[in-house]
Amino acid sequence: MRTPRHMLWDQLFRLPDQPALPLQARLRAAVVREILAGRLASGAALPSSRDLARLMGLSRNTVTAAYQQLVDDGFLQARPRSGIFVAEGARQAVAEQAPAAPGLADGGHTRAPDWNARLVRSLSKLPTLSKPERWRDDYRYPFVYGSHDPQLFPTEDFRECCARSLARAQLAQWTPDFETEDVPDLVEQIRLRLLPKRGVFALPDEIVITVGAQQAFHLLAEALFDENTRVGLEEPGYPHARNAFLLRRPQLLPLAVDDDGLAVEALPPLDCVFVTPSHQSPTTVSLSLDRRRQLLQRAEATDFVIIEDDYESENLYEGTPMPALKSMDRSSRVLYVGALSKSLAPAVRLGFIVAPRALAAELRVLRHAMVRHPSAFLQHAYALFLSLGHHESHARRVNQALQERMTLAAAALHQHLPEFAFELPQGGASIWVRAPAWLDGAELAVTARRHGVLIEPGDVFHVSPPYPCPCFRLRLSSIAPGLIADGIVALRRAVDELADARGIGRRPLA
Amino acid sequence: MRTPRHMLWDQLFRLPDQPALPLQARLRAAVVREILAGRLASGAALPSSRDLARLMGLSRNTVTAAYQQLVDDGFLQARPRSGIFVAEGARQAVAEQAPAAPGLADGGHTRAPDWNARLVRSLSKLPTLSKPERWRDDYRYPFVYGSHDPQLFPTEDFRECCARSLARAQLAQWTPDFETEDVPDLVEQIRLRLLPKRGVFALPDEIVITVGAQQAFHLLAEALFDENTRVGLEEPGYPHARNAFLLRRPQLLPLAVDDDGLAVEALPPLDCVFVTPSHQSPTTVSLSLDRRRQLLQRAEATDFVIIEDDYESENLYEGTPMPALKSMDRSSRVLYVGALSKSLAPAVRLGFIVAPRALAAELRVLRHAMVRHPSAFLQHAYALFLSLGHHESHARRVNQALQERMTLAAAALHQHLPEFAFELPQGGASIWVRAPAWLDGAELAVTARRHGVLIEPGDVFHVSPPYPCPCFRLRLSSIAPGLIADGIVALRRAVDELADARGIGRRPLA
Repeated sequence: MRTPRHMLWDQLFRLPDQPALPLQARLRAAVVREILAGRLASGAALPSSRDLARLMGLSRNTVTAAYQQLVDDGFLQARPRSGIFVAEGARQAVAEQAPAAPGLADGGHTRAPDWNARLVRSLSKLPTLSKPERWRDDYRYPFVYGSHDPQLFPTEDFRECCARSLARAQLAQWTPDFETEDVPDLVEQIRLRLLPKRGVFALPDEIVITVGAQQAFHLLAEALFDENTRVGLEEPGYPHARNAFLLRRPQLLPLAVDDDGLAVEALPPLDCVFVTPSHQSPTTVSLSLDRRRQLLQRAEATDFVIIEDDYESENLYEGTPMPALKSMDRSSRVLYVGALSKSLAPAVRLGFIVAPRALAAELRVLRHAMVRHPSAFLQHAYALFLSLGHHESHARRVNQALQERMTLAAAALHQHLPEFAFELPQGGASIWVRAPAWLDGAELAVTARRHGVLIEPGDVFHVSPPYPCPCFRLRLSSIAPGLIADGIVALRRAVDELADARGIGRRPLA
Repeated sequence: MRTPRHMLWDQLFRLPDQPALPLQARLRAAVVREILAGRLASGAALPSSRDLARLMGLSRNTVTAAYQQLVDDGFLQARPRSGIFVAEGARQAVAEQAPAAPGLADGGHTRAPDWNARLVRSLSKLPTLSKPERWRDDYRYPFVYGSHDPQLFPTEDFRECCARSLARAQLAQWTPDFETEDVPDLVEQIRLRLLPKRGVFALPDEIVITVGAQQAFHLLAEALFDENTRVGLEEPGYPHARNAFLLRRPQLLPLAVDDDGLAVEALPPLDCVFVTPSHQSPTTVSLSLDRRRQLLQRAEATDFVIIEDDYESENLYEGTPMPALKSMDRSSRVLYVGALSKSLAPAVRLGFIVAPRALAAELRVLRHAMVRHPSAFLQHAYALFLSLGHHESHARRVNQALQERMTLAAAALHQHLPEFAFELPQGGASIWVRAPAWLDGAELAVTARRHGVLIEPGDVFHVSPPYPCPCFRLRLSSIAPGLIADGIVALRRAVDELADARGIGRRPLA
């Protein structure tokens, strides 16, 4: 793709965000950065100082001085009556001024270690939920996890909580090293405000704060799983939990899921089951009460333990959510994992585990070796956010928005993809769609990208995916409501394209 | 220890920090909490509503209404002319309103799993740096890591950065899921502002942000260590890195440290060395230039890799710090670990790794399975903190304060413990003290606690500690300057007490 020249320069010379440095130094740093990164190659002509000054809104003196310094350093070359060019060997010169430039040596250096041979654990080849680079910019219809509507973000409320945490009188509450401890106020808020709504009552030393729910899965695997542990997973199930578990190489046993959730009647011998009772991930069904009872009975009878991911339990459009599986657990064998900040913003990263006291103590020591502890600043700010009632009011706003989007998506699916089946969920942010049997979700995902649509193909949720795997998930947390109908139309076009390629006849798009 | 009755009530009824709830509800929650925790047993008398109202600064109506509700719920019992008591079976009633009370069942429930048998990894019995509970409240002279002077905290600066991150226009920069990515502004700040000061030049995709330096150690161990990996550690060395490594059960090989740092002349065959060149942890010596060259030569010659913990490299009282070992690495075999937020507050939790691009990509995928990614909100706020120059000015203030404390501590040691040897470091927050050969640091640490003094005994820094281990570390980051001299006098008293017990004659305290 050709970029107009002035846009290119504009991009190249985005100044590093260092207001404390003089403009001239920032401009020099930008040039050096681009040379080092290889985007300004030897012999490339730079804009005249006049042009660059105009382009960047700098004084011409600033640009001239920066250029002169770079010429003196040997990075640029001034050719009389021609202009300013990147000097021959400039990249090497930049790299040599730096005593080491590992990125440049990387691969090319004969004495470099063989990192591939040294890598003893890698997850990079495993299937997982992933998005293309620049997904937020390049795709108009992102039916995937990961973004959210900035209009819903409680900016003022969260800012107030951060500012309060940074009041001088509060510093002693969170600035010290917490070692294996957590911020007591956050533990109390979870205990007395969040958990009772889920029917769960816990003591403070049964709660372990984590860097999001993801760390909870990883921490439990580290404590409980080795090569001999038989871990049952819903099939299809949540790939990020599966990948965290895989680090400890347990025996993964896929367990069937049907319209009532995990099929508990025919469980193989197990040491642990990972389950998402609130909204099964990815099918969104809620595990029925009967199934919950049976699962707990089986766990007691055959002595396995349960990791409950109480995923999106607060995201219910109306009515009262079913209490957590943990609330029915009378033999302390359910380990409860909750997300805290997910509804606020995926990137804040706070979650927690409820576990029996002795195990919780071990988890805290393991956590210390992994990260010391989750940021106490965030813990403190989030405790305030909870204590002021912001968490609930934010969850209500999110739920209203999701319900609206769900209605729009369901109507568009019925209209444009009538042969696709789905159950409208009572809550959550996703629709699990079953396409006609000939269609593979992964192939659809690839084709849909060309139509500006991102979907989550069904195969990544499986330990052993079928082919074709005619399922996919539409997530509605990242897409603006006004784009949903158009997005489904675009998805329909992708389906038509695949059908045409296979010679499958379809009604034309209305 | 007997507590005066009014103090007891005062403590029991500390109201949960939930300003959004009515006072009455908060009081009820407090009573329920105390019953559930077993601190208010059946039959215990509660204060009269008049007394409690006075004690808590509440209106009497509030207390009466809360008591009445609790009586109605069956948790309290009103006995005419006697007062209010905790009802018979109240704890059970509270627990039964809660469908499950795992804390109560814990241990007592016959069908509970045997968690000890299920625990496949535990670090809780390993020696480590630790502090007694309530160390900030109960010990006057904390010569340990973990706290810092609130007067030094750049409250306004950091608050501004958080508030700016929470400006609506900034939300899109950090609220989405980053998957395996990091906040680009923070990576750029590390790359262009922090690393060049250490002589290190890296490309953006060679930098991996971590939840503090601790996650960097853990992440590298996860990627590179298994039971066959031979990992050299400084002896004495940093126990928290050692414990992170131990999770992957490598062969740990202790390597001698002398007055020039790690003794590199006689290294055994190794796959990896962990080293703290800036200020050796715990001895504080800087690895000499000759040793650095030799270490890199040996690494190339015998093909091992190096994890460099560039610990406290910015904490230098004056002069220019020696560049990082990484800056001399011409074969990409040094993995550089830096802390970011440590000087701001230990509990913020941001650090980073510089690694060759291919390894960095693997580390990001592993990190995703562990925590998804470090909080992007913190990353964004800290990028601003760096870009506005606050990081450096804060580091300068901290260094001035540490230098002042170091001078005070050195003078007090010379005066009160003249037979104890130490080298005054050029930077950092610690003094490594060699006591007379008869004295064991761990025993001194126990005795010193009774004198209100916390020290870090030398044995925990060793893989194979000698006995007696006549060394200990005094950290000066947590203790106010005005208490340092008195703290050393108190430590002297602890030494005298141990000497007396052994019949070792000593000069009386001046």
